[in-house]
Amino acid sequence: MKAKLLALALLASTQLYAQNDSLTMRKLSDDILLNGTCYDNLRVLCKQVGHRLSGSLQAAKAVAWGQQALEAAGADKVWLQAVDVPHWVRGKERLSLRFEGEKTFKDVKVLSIGNTVGTDGKVLEAPVVIVKSIEDFRLMNKEDVKGKIIFFNYRFRQDLVNTFEGYGDAGKYRWLAPNMAAAQGAAGVIIRSVSTGTDDEPHTGSMRYADTVKPIPAVAIGNHTADALEQACIKGNVTAQIQSDCKMLGTARSYNVIGEIKGSTYPDKIVMVGGHLDSWDVGEGAHDDGAGCVQSIEVIRALKAAGIRPKYTVRAVLFMNEENGLKGGMAYADSAKAARETHIFAIETDAGGFSPRGFSLEMKPEQRAQITQYKKLFLPYGIYDFEQVHGGADISPLMKQGVPVGGLIPDAQRYFDLHHTHADVFEAVNHRELKMGAVALTNLVYLVSKYGLR
Amino acid sequence: MKAKLLALALLASTQLYAQNDSLTMRKLSDDILLNGTCYDNLRVLCKQVGHRLSGSLQAAKAVAWGQQALEAAGADKVWLQAVDVPHWVRGKERLSLRFEGEKTFKDVKVLSIGNTVGTDGKVLEAPVVIVKSIEDFRLMNKEDVKGKIIFFNYRFRQDLVNTFEGYGDAGKYRWLAPNMAAAQGAAGVIIRSVSTGTDDEPHTGSMRYADTVKPIPAVAIGNHTADALEQACIKGNVTAQIQSDCKMLGTARSYNVIGEIKGSTYPDKIVMVGGHLDSWDVGEGAHDDGAGCVQSIEVIRALKAAGIRPKYTVRAVLFMNEENGLKGGMAYADSAKAARETHIFAIETDAGGFSPRGFSLEMKPEQRAQITQYKKLFLPYGIYDFEQVHGGADISPLMKQGVPVGGLIPDAQRYFDLHHTHADVFEAVNHRELKMGAVALTNLVYLVSKYGLR
Repeated sequence: MKAKLLALALLASTQLYAQNDSLTMRKLSDDILLNGTCYDNLRVLCKQVGHRLSGSLQAAKAVAWGQQALEAAGADKVWLQAVDVPHWVRGKERLSLRFEGEKTFKDVKVLSIGNTVGTDGKVLEAPVVIVKSIEDFRLMNKEDVKGKIIFFNYRFRQDLVNTFEGYGDAGKYRWLAPNMAAAQGAAGVIIRSVSTGTDDEPHTGSMRYADTVKPIPAVAIGNHTADALEQACIKGNVTAQIQSDCKMLGTARSYNVIGEIKGSTYPDKIVMVGGHLDSWDVGEGAHDDGAGCVQSIEVIRALKAAGIRPKYTVRAVLFMNEENGLKGGMAYADSAKAARETHIFAIETDAGGFSPRGFSLEMKPEQRAQITQYKKLFLPYGIYDFEQVHGGADISPLMKQGVPVGGLIPDAQRYFDLHHTHADVFEAVNHRELKMGAVALTNLVYLVSKYGLR
Repeated sequence: MKAKLLALALLASTQLYAQNDSLTMRKLSDDILLNGTCYDNLRVLCKQVGHRLSGSLQAAKAVAWGQQALEAAGADKVWLQAVDVPHWVRGKERLSLRFEGEKTFKDVKVLSIGNTVGTDGKVLEAPVVIVKSIEDFRLMNKEDVKGKIIFFNYRFRQDLVNTFEGYGDAGKYRWLAPNMAAAQGAAGVIIRSVSTGTDDEPHTGSMRYADTVKPIPAVAIGNHTADALEQACIKGNVTAQIQSDCKMLGTARSYNVIGEIKGSTYPDKIVMVGGHLDSWDVGEGAHDDGAGCVQSIEVIRALKAAGIRPKYTVRAVLFMNEENGLKGGMAYADSAKAARETHIFAIETDAGGFSPRGFSLEMKPEQRAQITQYKKLFLPYGIYDFEQVHGGADISPLMKQGVPVGGLIPDAQRYFDLHHTHADVFEAVNHRELKMGAVALTNLVYLVSKYGLR
């Protein structure tokens, strides 16, 4: 064991980069900051395609856009990979509340949670029961739940510095609460949005009904509306009406969009970078994850523009259906397995187009040691955090096959103000922050496609 | 020498913090993120006071606001420190351009550079001569400059990762170019704004005429207008009209606003944190430097709310007139000297209310070593950069007296899109980013006011 540790330490201490790598990285950075096309690409995606939920017409337009953008970036080869995706539609939706002592219902801002059922256009009216948490809900009697609309009033924990930790904590109210309430015979669910926002934007997002429950409608309200509803529930009885056309239409044919630069020495071994092309059906999917798509395309463009021929094949993948099915990520991994492709590293960018701070890494210790060695090369770009251990949703099926994975870590203080809302638009992305993310990704892909990964 | 280095190394290695400090820092962070008032304070300052150039009525309102806010924060003592400031007014201003082949002049977006003279309401009309840089200007013959309006078309260097470096580089076109042009007999100056923006916002900011030149009007245009003017100058002759009421009205009485918590052990020794209360006369001075003011006030509030009685006196200073005179910073240092006050540390927050990344430090090596030792305590808050060597403008007079100084370093990718423009408004500040800056400052002030500085 001691010998193994020693060998590991020795391996980790072997410098696996050259003096001139820092110069090449600077050259790549200069080019991206001065001539990068990712910000312009994002403008086109957001403004000419717009939001693009899997199965929608816009998603098809986004596929065509992605193909064109990868070709314009100079990829040696660009292709589409077929994938069947769920096709959910929102249609019209309405949440109306009547507080104690009021005669009429008042419409409030609302977004149904993705993948949920609607009311077939009928009005579902029921008393509202407020609960603070899943733990409190578990203490309730079934008869107090039956036929009611349960309002899960759980707040995103603003005290957590890492907002993704807060998302993991509050996100279960989107994933679990509708199933828990349905299992107890509730008529519907309202959740306080999974949101750090100081505004009243409702946040949509994914859920999946358990096979054991009869699906009930589930909707999200913004923080201001949730505050008002909380107060009203404390003061007296509240009745809600939910009316919506949400439904799952079945599956639709769609595509992952893939472009690559062929490796000079190991053309069959792949370094992959990717984001997802689909978005929710509100806003413009700018941070989530238009940013990741245009950054991945930028990696190809910048390497090509610098005349760098990587030893390993560099591949950019724009995944379809990350938001409500992950079918693109699964299809990609299945295809890689079937074709006996070897991925030596896959990195995802799906945490917003904000200033980058680091890379999360999920891989063997000696591989982590190698990449962490690059830290000093990345510090001039504000990249210092190599501690986190995870990859990303779309590359999780690859990871299960044993591929070393990672993720770009941007500063995420603003992310959950915007995530899955009408406010996630092009204007919310800063050109320099977006480009700095592309610089970070390009430079890491440059190093790994030159030296491989132990 | 070796002995001295050894002693220094030994000193630096002595741990000057306790295990429970990390718990106290977490408690302070939790409180600021959950209950902090800095974001609400900023809303009031921006929306009820608005922009507040030195000498203006709004600056006087801001003084009253600052006093009230420091009292509400629970400072033991709040007072005003008189300072005479320059009172410059913009009045109406207009820049009109007539390109070759056009019959009429067209108004473009413009902001006069602060402290400049106007045209007394008259129309100054002259041919435009474009120069790329100060170096190119130096090569020109005096007769080619005389009577002309010189357009300094220097671009902010987007390739520099540290935007403050870019600001230092391009900023000289605001400071130096008008004087250089005036010295050669130019009639006026147009500069491409000191701006990273993708928009057409002109950026104002300070300049000072050299005693040796006859003042001429100097104005700034946004990047789009500058691009158009550049093209027009390449294609043919361009004539410009400048008409403005800008003038210096003399001096006005104003105030620094100061609040403090008295130290328990060393009441006469001071740890100071501050930002500046004045702003340019456009936008709302949100990032510059409303953010720094409300963060400084938050330091007082958070320490008080946590029941922490610092050993050293903690003082928050809202400086007047950073933007166009620095009279507040000079008056504060003069007063400190006259009263024989000892400042053991002064830190400034005047680089925008963005996610913090570090502290710049300008002090003795052993003092720097002590604060750098705190790095591990700060890493959970995204604070990793302790390398930069500078303080801030308002505390530079203190530094000249030998006071160890520092500055909060936020992520500044967005700053020079907004800096000194109409767009620097409350909505451009994110609540969590602003608060994270306050957390960083509060925790550093907590440590230094507990342990002192070697």
